[in-house]
Amino acid sequence: MRQVITLLLCFFSTAQVSAQPDSLLVSKLYEEALGRGECYENLRVLCKDIGHRLSGSESLVTAISWGEHLLASYGADEVELQRVNVPHWSRGTKAQATFKSKKEEGLLRITALGGSVPTEGMLTAQVIEVKRLEELEKLGESQIKGKIVLFNRAMDPLMINTGSAYGGAFDQRSDGASTAAKYGAVGVLVRSLTHALDTFPHTGSMTYREGVSPIPAAAISTVDADRLHQSIQADPTTQVSMDMDCIKYENRDQANVIATLRGNDKQTGEHVIVLGGHLDSWDIGEGAHDDGAGIVHVIEALRIMKAIGYQPRHTIRVVLYINEENGNHGGITYAEQAEKNKETHIAAIESDSGGFTPRGYNTECGDTLYHALTAWIENLEMYGIHQVKRGWSGVDIRPLKPQTTNLFGFIPDGQRYFDYHHSNRDVFENVNKRELELGAASIAALAIYLDNYLP
Amino acid sequence: MRQVITLLLCFFSTAQVSAQPDSLLVSKLYEEALGRGECYENLRVLCKDIGHRLSGSESLVTAISWGEHLLASYGADEVELQRVNVPHWSRGTKAQATFKSKKEEGLLRITALGGSVPTEGMLTAQVIEVKRLEELEKLGESQIKGKIVLFNRAMDPLMINTGSAYGGAFDQRSDGASTAAKYGAVGVLVRSLTHALDTFPHTGSMTYREGVSPIPAAAISTVDADRLHQSIQADPTTQVSMDMDCIKYENRDQANVIATLRGNDKQTGEHVIVLGGHLDSWDIGEGAHDDGAGIVHVIEALRIMKAIGYQPRHTIRVVLYINEENGNHGGITYAEQAEKNKETHIAAIESDSGGFTPRGYNTECGDTLYHALTAWIENLEMYGIHQVKRGWSGVDIRPLKPQTTNLFGFIPDGQRYFDYHHSNRDVFENVNKRELELGAASIAALAIYLDNYLP
Repeated sequence: MRQVITLLLCFFSTAQVSAQPDSLLVSKLYEEALGRGECYENLRVLCKDIGHRLSGSESLVTAISWGEHLLASYGADEVELQRVNVPHWSRGTKAQATFKSKKEEGLLRITALGGSVPTEGMLTAQVIEVKRLEELEKLGESQIKGKIVLFNRAMDPLMINTGSAYGGAFDQRSDGASTAAKYGAVGVLVRSLTHALDTFPHTGSMTYREGVSPIPAAAISTVDADRLHQSIQADPTTQVSMDMDCIKYENRDQANVIATLRGNDKQTGEHVIVLGGHLDSWDIGEGAHDDGAGIVHVIEALRIMKAIGYQPRHTIRVVLYINEENGNHGGITYAEQAEKNKETHIAAIESDSGGFTPRGYNTECGDTLYHALTAWIENLEMYGIHQVKRGWSGVDIRPLKPQTTNLFGFIPDGQRYFDYHHSNRDVFENVNKRELELGAASIAALAIYLDNYLP
Repeated sequence: MRQVITLLLCFFSTAQVSAQPDSLLVSKLYEEALGRGECYENLRVLCKDIGHRLSGSESLVTAISWGEHLLASYGADEVELQRVNVPHWSRGTKAQATFKSKKEEGLLRITALGGSVPTEGMLTAQVIEVKRLEELEKLGESQIKGKIVLFNRAMDPLMINTGSAYGGAFDQRSDGASTAAKYGAVGVLVRSLTHALDTFPHTGSMTYREGVSPIPAAAISTVDADRLHQSIQADPTTQVSMDMDCIKYENRDQANVIATLRGNDKQTGEHVIVLGGHLDSWDIGEGAHDDGAGIVHVIEALRIMKAIGYQPRHTIRVVLYINEENGNHGGITYAEQAEKNKETHIAAIESDSGGFTPRGYNTECGDTLYHALTAWIENLEMYGIHQVKRGWSGVDIRPLKPQTTNLFGFIPDGQRYFDYHHSNRDVFENVNKRELELGAASIAALAIYLDNYLP
């Protein structure tokens, strides 16, 4: 590391108000993250001792308490819970499906999409396959009514950016049930949003449009979607039976966890830079990459700042948002309260793309800061950081946009993300310690840069 | 992908002799790799149907035949086997070790270092711990004679480049036994070269210096190295017992596999660009990342060139080297034969750093080509390629250096590499399909660039 430090291009001095943190400071925080890091062990506790933690669940109550105490133990000046009213839904105890054609029958691995209504006992109907929502309009009620619709468009493997491939297939999951219900379908199966050809259904959010009768909606594993496709090809009268006992409870009050490091600048010390991830997860797997990694990233960023004795000029707030997955009430509530309290937010960074090796940052900021960042990150090439891109920041911090456009999304390498995303494979064992630690350091580096750069 | 293509900075035209391959050609090869790729399935066959394949083994015979037939099936103009005389060693059937102190006793997970002599029955001796080879000189024969030496220096977690951290801890494994034997030690245990704190011993090469009596040498898992350290701290008389029945056989003739795509340039069509990986592996795990990935990368690069109809100007040779792990007789033989046959080699690319997401290329080339490459790869940022670095190319192609300095090593992200390297964790399941495919495309892109750039 010493060699690495000496090789680093010289920055400006270490003075608190210098335009950018100096190389020694950056190297110190990477040393802290890699040499004495605690984020990996924290993630183990969150995943293994607490487990998945959907909004409204008791395990999220435990996770909120865990986050509150951990942030306090790392020396935050204050830690508070911000009440958030969240939906409370459970996938229940059953998610069974089978298919039957003239030639064969078999099991299908499915899981309810988040928010789905139950099937109310076994639902059996002929299945019809489409790739795009638009096909439903052509088929019309005559061909759809009374059937289960299989949405079977794969994520595009040719897109290098896996997030873009996800976005390109997303409408099936978010809007498939409502669109199919409009034409009288009785249920939908949606091909799991993953590049992997595997047997794990990948869940995720969906919504029922107003005025449409809700019908049960499930994700089906890619292997089973392919198998069902073949069955339908061989026998268009293929039937699917599905049984899910999802439950919708009353909304419930839970909380964002907000930890503060006070700023020491006389003029602007109360201006806030947010570092956020989301504490809730889907209720399968362990929410390790999504978004346990982001949670331990931002907690670790605070720990690192304290450990290296960094005194922020502005107020640094680590926010463990809740309810990103099915409502975003955590992000919306935080932004509403900030506006109501007339707080000044000058930047926000979100980590919600997994605990993989860092590549850089997305940003929605203005040109001046963008160009300054582009120059700055040349000095982070040695840490694998090489991208500042115009692009989406994050669901949790986006409601802050009317208050600041200095929004940033941490970009780790995304090639493996959707193998795990929203499935039983999103577990601690699939997170690499060093990759996770480098992420925490990269987020701390950006936070310190912004703290020094912004007035 | 269409969007991606239109966004790409405009290159020169597609003419065969243009200075660089155009954006459409590059996008075509990525499309082929990601959309119709065969390298992942090829790796499955190599790892699961054939398995590990140490030089001299029967499974390497099978692997050579597999590579030969696969390359022919992909339309190589010719495929030949080049005889190589290689060492033949086996770790035998036993690698057992225990420790015993005044306070406790327990099992130690060890495996022989490659080339180790056997223990000739159970070897029991007091263990003495050092971190550096230099400490042995200070301790001297009086404190070392008759003992087992534990070399217990961890790879430096602060180094971002994991290969450098490996290099920094390598001497314990390569030279520990010879150095300890000089002072009368009867055996050595070497802390596994990995960042992971796990229970897997990681093997690797070691050599006995001339004039030194060979003593048994084993890798010990990092968890057990830590445990043994604690035992020695508590009781310096801690003893270790170890039993390994390694066998050294007579050398054996095996072969490099060499596949050729003939060049179509009238002047320089016979000049050779090598794409190489090594077909041999250690005899634990499956040699998936090391170097099954490199093997299927270079085979896939040839398949892609054929699939997109690329006509090389120079001769492209895909070389599946053998014996990289314990002797490098494959690389040396290839270079010797090339010189003997008065062949002209103008470049060589090696993939031997695993099947992870690409970041760029190391090179030993001259300034002019280096600067041209640096400019060229700016257009590969969209594929995650952002590094051309001066550095080590690869063990197999290095013997070609007197013939050409245009040597390149493919650089994937290296954070996870040493978790798997030379251990039972280096299996197919730990390779990601997309990451592997992107590697193959990145190697094909560089090969085509060099084919067009070089005279």
